[in-house]
Parts: sequence; C-alpha cells; structure tokens
Amino acid sequence: MQIAILGTGIVSRTLAAKLASLGHDVHVGTRDVAATLARTETGSWGSPPYSTWAAENPSVRLASFADAAAAGEVVLNCVSGTGSLAALQLAGAAHLAGKVLIDLANPLDFSRGMPPRLSIGNDDSLGEAIQRAFPEARVVKALNTVNCALMVDPSRIPGDHDVFVAGNDPTARAAVTGWLREWFGWKSPIDLGDLTASRGLEAWLHLWLRLYATLGTVDFNIRVAR
Amino acid sequence: MQIAILGTGIVSRTLAAKLASLGHDVHVGTRDVAATLARTETGSWGSPPYSTWAAENPSVRLASFADAAAAGEVVLNCVSGTGSLAALQLAGAAHLAGKVLIDLANPLDFSRGMPPRLSIGNDDSLGEAIQRAFPEARVVKALNTVNCALMVDPSRIPGDHDVFVAGNDPTARAAVTGWLREWFGWKSPIDLGDLTASRGLEAWLHLWLRLYATLGTVDFNIRVAR
Repeated sequence: MQIAILGTGIVSRTLAAKLASLGHDVHVGTRDVAATLARTETGSWGSPPYSTWAAENPSVRLASFADAAAAGEVVLNCVSGTGSLAALQLAGAAHLAGKVLIDLANPLDFSRGMPPRLSIGNDDSLGEAIQRAFPEARVVKALNTVNCALMVDPSRIPGDHDVFVAGNDPTARAAVTGWLREWFGWKSPIDLGDLTASRGLEAWLHLWLRLYATLGTVDFNIRVAR
Repeated sequence: MQIAILGTGIVSRTLAAKLASLGHDVHVGTRDVAATLARTETGSWGSPPYSTWAAENPSVRLASFADAAAAGEVVLNCVSGTGSLAALQLAGAAHLAGKVLIDLANPLDFSRGMPPRLSIGNDDSLGEAIQRAFPEARVVKALNTVNCALMVDPSRIPGDHDVFVAGNDPTARAAVTGWLREWFGWKSPIDLGDLTASRGLEAWLHLWLRLYATLGTVDFNIRVAR
C-alpha cells in the first residue's frame, strides 16, 4: 500500500519503519526536503538527524508534504499539533480529498513551559479543526493517546489495553480499525463515533502527561474496564 | 469518624449511605435545610426528593453547609462543579482550616448543551481553584473520575481498575488513600502528586463522557496498564 506520513519526528519515523518493514511503500513528507536532509543536530527527544535515520531505513522515501500526500492512498498526520494545519495546507487539499487522513497529532503548546497546555480543546479539538479545514478528507483520530513505540507494538505492555478511533465517516473508521489490527496488532480498537470524540482523546493528554511524570515511563496505556 | 459531605445530590447520597453503613457519623450539608426538605420534585438523574431518601437513611444528619463542615473531621465536596466554590464559602474557611477536604467535583458546564464543557481547565482546575480559595484546607482531588456507584463499590467491575489522588499535602494524600481502601475497597489508588494533577483528572471527563455515550453504561473505569 502507498502510505504517506507527514512529519519527520520520532512518531513519523517509528510508524514509517514499522510500515516499511511490513512491505508498504512509505512516503515521508516534510516542508523542505533539502533542509531536512541537511540538518545535523539531534532532535528534542534525543533522536538522530533525519539523514542518519534515513540511511538505516533506505526503503522509506522522503518527499515534500505535497508529493508525499499525492503518493499516499492513506495519509497519516504525524506533524506536531501546532504545526499540523500548516503542514496539511502544504500537502494540499486536492491531495487529501477522498482519502482517509489519520490524525495522530496532539495540540500540545509548550510555549508557556511544562506541562504543556492544549492549544485547542474543551468544545473543539485539533481533529475537528483539521476536518473543517479539509472537508473532503476523511479524518480519523487515532493513536494519539499512546507513545509511538506502543502505537506500533501494543505487546510492549502485558495484557489487554485500548486505543480508539473517531471520525465522521463510518467507513473510514472501519478502515482505520482494520489497519490498526493488521499493521500493529491492536485487537479491538474502540469506536467512539464522530469526530467530536477528538475532544476527549486529546484532553486525555492532560492525564497522560501526569501519569508519564508519575510512572517515569511512556510504556503505559489504559484499558477500559467494564 | 465525623464526616461532612457537602451537597445533596446522587453523589453525596451514595457516599453518605455507604459511610453511614460503616458506622460513621455523616453530616450532609446543604444551602437551606428547610428548602431541601421541602422539595418534592424528582432529581435530574431520576433520584427521589431528599426527604424520601433521608427517611430511608435516618442516621444521616442534614445540616447547613457551615454546620456540616464544622462537625466534620474530614469534608467531602460533592457539590456540582459550578456550585462548589459558593458552597464552600458558605461552609466557611474557618470550618475547613487544617482539615482534609476531598474534592470529588467536576467543573461540568451544561449551559451550552451536551456534551458539557469544562468551566475551568487546561492550565488550571477546580481542585486548584478550591485550594487557592481555601489555603488552609488540605485539598485532595479524588474519585471524580468514576461514577458514584463505583466510587463506593469498585467490585461492580471485574478485575483491577484505578482511582487517583492528588493534593499538595502528602500527609493528606496518604490519609485519603487509606480511606479509599478502608471505606470502599480501592486496593491501590495512584498518587499523582500535587494538585496540578487535577487538570488531568478533570480533563479526563471529556473522554469519560464519550465512553459513557459509546458504552451506554456508567459502570466502567480505566486500569493503567504498564
């Protein structure tokens, strides 16, 4: 499958490596290909420069946001929350129209220090903002509730635990549910219905961040017990 | 133990009945005792008038917010989120000073319809607002993350699942942790540290409300899997 992944950070790379290992054609999108490849500094989470990572993942292609989105049958938004709308504008509405757009981003705003605020929330969400900006895309919020290593390997944590999908198009939600199973091994993603559920999925970050601080690890998740 | 429970709604009644059954002296606080007893209408969640409930729970005393708070060795805030600060003002700072004040409220604002917004959040919380207004109280946020039937009986759901405590006073957090075990049977409440964790515990309501809509029951909770 042709898969576009927007963003070059740790979330994007983790997903790209996993999906490429499964035999998919992965197109990582960035604002400026030359600038991304020219960077030599280590990332904010200790990740190596993109070029170093790319050399270890030669099957993953790097392209402009627009070219990556054009190539993808499905598009994954792994850009930071505050940069997502601008990146998607560069990707281009025409290249998103009709496609499933999986939004993994969280609208974390670090500008006022730690812990981050959410730049949008309460009665709105980034997922909804993206859907409003790209009405022809079929936006599905998913995977934003867990760390990226866990996104692609739920078995890192013993026992059952849950991820969620939300989106206005039931067919798109069903497609993403199938991919979460097939690609990563999530047994039973919980379908929360329309995209207003993004409010809850993004607000969860407030508690996720606190649990991260308390537990001292990102290797945790929640199971909905009932 | 002398326990003050502020509020006369379903959360207050559920806790009062349970704590009275354990032999505690429970003082339910309300704005106007005569008006509370005079009400004949059914509550918003189908609960009977307070007087009907009180007749079935004769050991629970009804008092003004101030008298209840004065009598309590510990005070539980079970008033609605939007009414909490006003109720606590009526309870009186002097009657809260030095005491553990367990805040179970959620700042749900139904004024713009369903689902409710939070009236405070992101980089603040109701728990913190209460602590700021009553600096001599030892505020501990707890139990706001689950339905009231589950608060007093975690065994309603099979397996392990979690509740949390947060507060600026470690001794108060430890006391509440002990009470959650002793009163209700919560095995291992997770200590999230200082009261800024209320932001996460209250923001959780956004996802709780959506899960409630999706699952069609309030009998659910989360387990932190790790």
